Amino acid sequence: MPNFNLSLYLVTDQSLSLDRPLKSVIEAAVRGGVSMVQLREKNASTREFYDLAMKVKAYIKPYNVPLIINDRLDVALACNAEGIHLGQNDIPYDIARKLLGKDKIIGLSVESVMDAERANNLDVDYIAISPVFDTPTKTDTSKALGLGGVKDILKITRHRCVAIGGISKENAADIISAGAEGIAVVSAIMSSENPQDSARQLRNLVDHTKNRLG
Amino acid sequence: MPNFNLSLYLVTDQSLSLDRPLKSVIEAAVRGGVSMVQLREKNASTREFYDLAMKVKAYIKPYNVPLIINDRLDVALACNAEGIHLGQNDIPYDIARKLLGKDKIIGLSVESVMDAERANNLDVDYIAISPVFDTPTKTDTSKALGLGGVKDILKITRHRCVAIGGISKENAADIISAGAEGIAVVSAIMSSENPQDSARQLRNLVDHTKNRLG
Repeated sequence: MPNFNLSLYLVTDQSLSLDRPLKSVIEAAVRGGVSMVQLREKNASTREFYDLAMKVKAYIKPYNVPLIINDRLDVALACNAEGIHLGQNDIPYDIARKLLGKDKIIGLSVESVMDAERANNLDVDYIAISPVFDTPTKTDTSKALGLGGVKDILKITRHRCVAIGGISKENAADIISAGAEGIAVVSAIMSSENPQDSARQLRNLVDHTKNRLG
Repeated sequence: MPNFNLSLYLVTDQSLSLDRPLKSVIEAAVRGGVSMVQLREKNASTREFYDLAMKVKAYIKPYNVPLIINDRLDVALACNAEGIHLGQNDIPYDIARKLLGKDKIIGLSVESVMDAERANNLDVDYIAISPVFDTPTKTDTSKALGLGGVKDILKITRHRCVAIGGISKENAADIISAGAEGIAVVSAIMSSENPQDSARQLRNLVDHTKNRLG
């Protein structure tokens, strides 16, 4: 499995990119300090998703930023992405691992302590605790966990963790202080007027908070 | 590659199944004489699609009816389906073949003589000439080819052919007489009050027309 850094994990959403091409927003974000990129395209055709993934992969490779594909194992395999992110309604983990092999990253969304307990029985490479706060980005998620809910999951999980859902400059430090290894964001970067600058500020917040915690 | 029989090819559409469970319609259709089943689920979650595919596969296996998955190579791989059907906006053929291997069926939709010429350069296992007639089933297809357009494609293709789009008991014999190996249908079975009976009638029409042609 490739090394990966969960500090600042960008999850894409074409509809939140203020009509800018997704690729240009991702590029700016990576220049700003995003450490992982997850392409989440629920409305693209398979071919569009694949074409986008190939382009993004070529761009971010020199930055050593892994490309993770949301849900679509076919796209992940076709573009030889570094990994896949699975939700609770996606393909079962065991099958994804079998098809992808041990050399790829597999992440899993967990929305409760129960999900996290189940994930402890799987060799996933990280979990995404979701959603921390209420967010307009996703309409199909459970109710917000809050910082307390995130801490409950962090207490019992054996996996590396990123948290997602309504995370911004205002609360990023709290998430890291709570014990998450990183933050995942959608609109805080996708909808920023200056994605590179927003990425830089968020990454600095994460890095400084970790340094403070030692 | 498994043997397959294109005579009567059912393509599913949950929204046309008159609120009946897809699985029950498919089962009736297979009992009636459907020779191939393609699951096309554009709105299901990956997990729902996978779960449905596993159930359908288990049911149709004893009938020796191959299960083909529309577009979603991930679902095809996960459920070890007999093959995949690709549209012009799906994953590129070469990549699908590489990931699936030689032992699986790959079909490709062609909507023009130009598509068919390009398909002649690929080792697809069959092509689906689409759409023959105007149909309410798909809203993203090109304009109807008509019987003349189907014949133009049949003349130049080197592949086995099925035709799809607005095919019913009224015109099935014309399609076979034109030289197609089989017919693919959606609403003629999915929306039938009696899918088993409709499948039986359509299969008889195809078989009798082929016998008449010698």
